[in-house]
Amino acid sequence: MVKLVIDMSGGDNGVSATIGGVKLFLQDYSDVEFVLVGKKEELKEFENNERCTIIDAQEIAPMECTALEAMRNKETSVYKAVNAVKELNADGVVSAGSTGAFLSLTTLINKRIEGVSRPALILPFPTKQDNKYVVFLDVGASNENSPEELYQFAKMGEAYYRVVFNKENPTLYLMSNGTEEGKGSPVSKEAFKLLKDDKNFKGYIEARAVYEGYADVVAMDGFTGNVFLKGAEGMAKMMSGMIKDAFKSSFVSKIGYLFARKGFKGLSNKMDYKKVGGALLLGVNTIPVKAHGNSDPNSFYCSIRVCYNLAKGDVVNKIKQSLNGAK
Amino acid sequence: MVKLVIDMSGGDNGVSATIGGVKLFLQDYSDVEFVLVGKKEELKEFENNERCTIIDAQEIAPMECTALEAMRNKETSVYKAVNAVKELNADGVVSAGSTGAFLSLTTLINKRIEGVSRPALILPFPTKQDNKYVVFLDVGASNENSPEELYQFAKMGEAYYRVVFNKENPTLYLMSNGTEEGKGSPVSKEAFKLLKDDKNFKGYIEARAVYEGYADVVAMDGFTGNVFLKGAEGMAKMMSGMIKDAFKSSFVSKIGYLFARKGFKGLSNKMDYKKVGGALLLGVNTIPVKAHGNSDPNSFYCSIRVCYNLAKGDVVNKIKQSLNGAK
Repeated sequence: MVKLVIDMSGGDNGVSATIGGVKLFLQDYSDVEFVLVGKKEELKEFENNERCTIIDAQEIAPMECTALEAMRNKETSVYKAVNAVKELNADGVVSAGSTGAFLSLTTLINKRIEGVSRPALILPFPTKQDNKYVVFLDVGASNENSPEELYQFAKMGEAYYRVVFNKENPTLYLMSNGTEEGKGSPVSKEAFKLLKDDKNFKGYIEARAVYEGYADVVAMDGFTGNVFLKGAEGMAKMMSGMIKDAFKSSFVSKIGYLFARKGFKGLSNKMDYKKVGGALLLGVNTIPVKAHGNSDPNSFYCSIRVCYNLAKGDVVNKIKQSLNGAK
Repeated sequence: MVKLVIDMSGGDNGVSATIGGVKLFLQDYSDVEFVLVGKKEELKEFENNERCTIIDAQEIAPMECTALEAMRNKETSVYKAVNAVKELNADGVVSAGSTGAFLSLTTLINKRIEGVSRPALILPFPTKQDNKYVVFLDVGASNENSPEELYQFAKMGEAYYRVVFNKENPTLYLMSNGTEEGKGSPVSKEAFKLLKDDKNFKGYIEARAVYEGYADVVAMDGFTGNVFLKGAEGMAKMMSGMIKDAFKSSFVSKIGYLFARKGFKGLSNKMDYKKVGGALLLGVNTIPVKAHGNSDPNSFYCSIRVCYNLAKGDVVNKIKQSLNGAK
């Protein structure tokens, strides 16, 4: 049995998304049990389900909430959910609520894996190759990182890639401003030295090459990672808007849309990857999956599945092995 | 008269692009004179033009060439061009050749503006608003920067924006991983303190917001800037490819393209901004415009125009004023 804790109250769409996602998941997977944290009056339909435990939490952490505020208010659904992971020895936790609150609580309550200096936020990203993802970390858990932390990010990403994409030897890269000698920030240059004897480490990669599909794991500091990721997402969003405008620009182009829409459906699905899955904090003693705030039942279901698969794949222990094995 | 030096030999398309661009420019602008540096046998048609001076240079610097190599071989067109700026007291220089060679030579030969700690590569970028550009710097001249350098980047960007986009008080931002208190890298936090009393400084901006159009100048360190820019460009390229694939995906969608192509032409023009103009190194005692390596006569013409406009606008002195005025 896999035991997952679900923060039912976070997210922009309230319990409608989370309840729908949990119900679907209970139907599809028989080896999962849930700890559902939220307003108990909204969770009545799960009361008599023997695979569900309900924990009442009447408050919701605000989206923009500091780590300190998140720790202080012990009545929020996200606090009680993260705490339940520890108390009930669960395998993972999913929330669509405040990212800051969720990630800082998991770090403070569930603690870092021994030897991990800083946890990292990891996100799979689509590439030009169909169904081929590249994972980036850290995309925003830290404001700065040491070379040793970049080394750990690469190794944690390796463990993640093994579990999620079933590839024993994923290619590991360091994000850089060029691949020639002398390139790299001072921190990435030092990280390069730490990684250079690792058999899966392939060197520097430029940001324009990450979409090609040959890189599996790209490690970088959290500040650069966050700017990179949001910059790429913003560009994707701007271009999606321009595609819509292009089709709307004239009567004739509107007809064009009628003919071409099927092809464009695939494009929009591919770029909507974030709703399907969610970001994960690697390096703590649980599997905290941050579902998209704007999740609907289907995308929340996908976030639960990410957590479930990582729990089944024993990613926390794989990270421990990856970090110890290579040092 | 504006005197511009042109490296005729750099670039993937050889002299065909540069000769075409120069000829067009001579037709359109009567107050410009050129110093053309390249193989003299290829530049015969300019021999008797009284607005053109020819400097023979038989060698071409390789695209991947280090600063040291660029300085050593004094027979290359790019070396002779950059040197001619100093010798002939020209107003600016345009090259489509090796970026590394061109930028390091201008820094080494033309020197930094007094008080400027590091030059920055600046690039205008399209936004969602029509004809509204945001400029980013540094996008790759440095591997790391100090808070003082980020301060200078913002102020140099301000001077550039005044000249190029004719806006007296452009909005200045620092790129960051969030806008809340406590966000920012250690370097950007310190830069924030240096900028906070500047009347045009508006604070941190996230990478996803830069395309909205409200920011005019976004300063960041050269490593982050390079990763950001190449990440955004790579994303734009991947999506352009996906648009093409979407139209090609079936016979019906091909018909869709016939109807919608006019709308998509605008999109592709907007995203092709890099060919139109070129990157500029700010902070040295000249105006070095790096034309796209793959320039054709029209885009090379545009690069010359960027250099011409910045010379007319006296950007070098404006930078001096901007840096002195605000300190």
